[in-house]
Amino acid sequence: MLIGEVVGSVVSTRKDEQLESFKLLVVQVRDHANKPKEQYVVAVDAVGAGPGDVVLYASGSSARQTTITKDKPCDAVVMAIVDSWDVDGENVYEKWS
Amino acid sequence: MLIGEVVGSVVSTRKDEQLESFKLLVVQVRDHANKPKEQYVVAVDAVGAGPGDVVLYASGSSARQTTITKDKPCDAVVMAIVDSWDVDGENVYEKWS
Amino acid sequence: MLIGEVVGSVVSTRKDEQLESFKLLVVQVRDHANKPKEQYVVAVDAVGAGPGDVVLYASGSSARQTTITKDKPCDAVVMAIVDSWDVDGENVYEKWS
Amino acid sequence: MLIGEVVGSVVSTRKDEQLESFKLLVVQVRDHANKPKEQYVVAVDAVGAGPGDVVLYASGSSARQTTITKDKPCDAVVMAIVDSWDVDGENVYEKWS
Amino acid sequence: MLIGEVVGSVVSTRKDEQLESFKLLVVQVRDHANKPKEQYVVAVDAVGAGPGDVVLYASGSSARQTTITKDKPCDAVVMAIVDSWDVDGENVYEKWS
Repeated sequence: MLIGEVVGSVVSTRKDEQLESFKLLVVQVRDHANKPKEQYVVAVDAVGAGPGDVVLYASGSSARQTTITKDKPCDAVVMAIVDSWDVDGENVYEKWS
Repeated sequence: MLIGEVVGSVVSTRKDEQLESFKLLVVQVRDHANKPKEQYVVAVDAVGAGPGDVVLYASGSSARQTTITKDKPCDAVVMAIVDSWDVDGENVYEKWS
Repeated sequence: MLIGEVVGSVVSTRKDEQLESFKLLVVQVRDHANKPKEQYVVAVDAVGAGPGDVVLYASGSSARQTTITKDKPCDAVVMAIVDSWDVDGENVYEKWS
Repeated sequence: MLIGEVVGSVVSTRKDEQLESFKLLVVQVRDHANKPKEQYVVAVDAVGAGPGDVVLYASGSSARQTTITKDKPCDAVVMAIVDSWDVDGENVYEKWS
Repeated sequence: MLIGEVVGSVVSTRKDEQLESFKLLVVQVRDHANKPKEQYVVAVDAVGAGPGDVVLYASGSSARQTTITKDKPCDAVVMAIVDSWDVDGENVYEKWS
């Protein structure tokens, strides 16, 4: 998985019928020091994430293992909202600070 | 998924028999600010997309989860036409503007 | 899928028994303007491609969806020979020209 | 697989229900000479790894082949703790030295 | 598949039980002109390869299609030892020369 921040969302009316009810999030990837990278992904929301949330997303076939994405043409899913993480014993990110 | 623009199409008469009826689109990847990247992919069309359309495409095994691509040797599929998206509360792209 | 040119082939006598009859092609990737890239892949031939042919190849699990590669330890397959493609309304490549 | 060092962990209370009991490790990738790279991944722990351990992790669908990750939305798993490795006949890393 | 040279091996005693009997090879990737790249992978050996052998390896789910790697948490497998390959009609590598 990679860490990213939800920075926006995508609207689409004409799409594969299996995607009807999905919320499509624009996620900007963060590095392990919480610095934004130039990399982004559009991921299906499986946990009720919103703008500003720092999240974990899974890619590839693993993105189809949540209840809502099973057998769907979806290659990225937000499957956790991050509370905090640490690197080398230092707190890097804290949601509630 | 990634966002891209349909910039062309590929013609092939000699191909795996399972690909007979596919429309093969050349999709140039856009970044989250809608700037074209030097990256492209050839994707099967699952939603009736055409030149100039901004689309979402899925890669890998997820590309085989639409009705038309099931069990086909296809690793990229256009599964949505994008109407609009926003980043940091700003509208980045609007189809009908 | 990506576009590439068949530039060579690989010979191997000691290999997994499931690969016995495969033709292994060295494919150099082309960008969407038909310029060769520094990227290559070794792909199984599923369409009778040969040196100089411009082809489409599929990667990952999708490479196991042709009749000959089913359930084989193969992660790239040439599944179409390209006749032509266009970008922005201009013909980029034409096999018979 | 790639080699990496466990440099931290991620805490998340709101996540896909299938991930409830997972330990999520921040793994910084090492190159084959044991030099840290700017690349990281968040991986599920399948072997009881902790901070400072040098490990092997598997990505993609292969990350769902351990007992604890089966059918879970997880695309990276730590599946071995490295004791040592050598390159060109020289010992590069030794856990107990 | 990509071409690489076996440059070393990894020792691990604490690992997922499904990996017990695997030989783990450090493979340095070669480009199509046989020049070593800064990229490496740790791959399971399925053909009896050893140090100095130039090999083909498959990645992702395809790495689980050999008899010994079936259903194992393994994302790269050495599935062929290369005898020779050619590019643009020139012999690039010859094992027995």
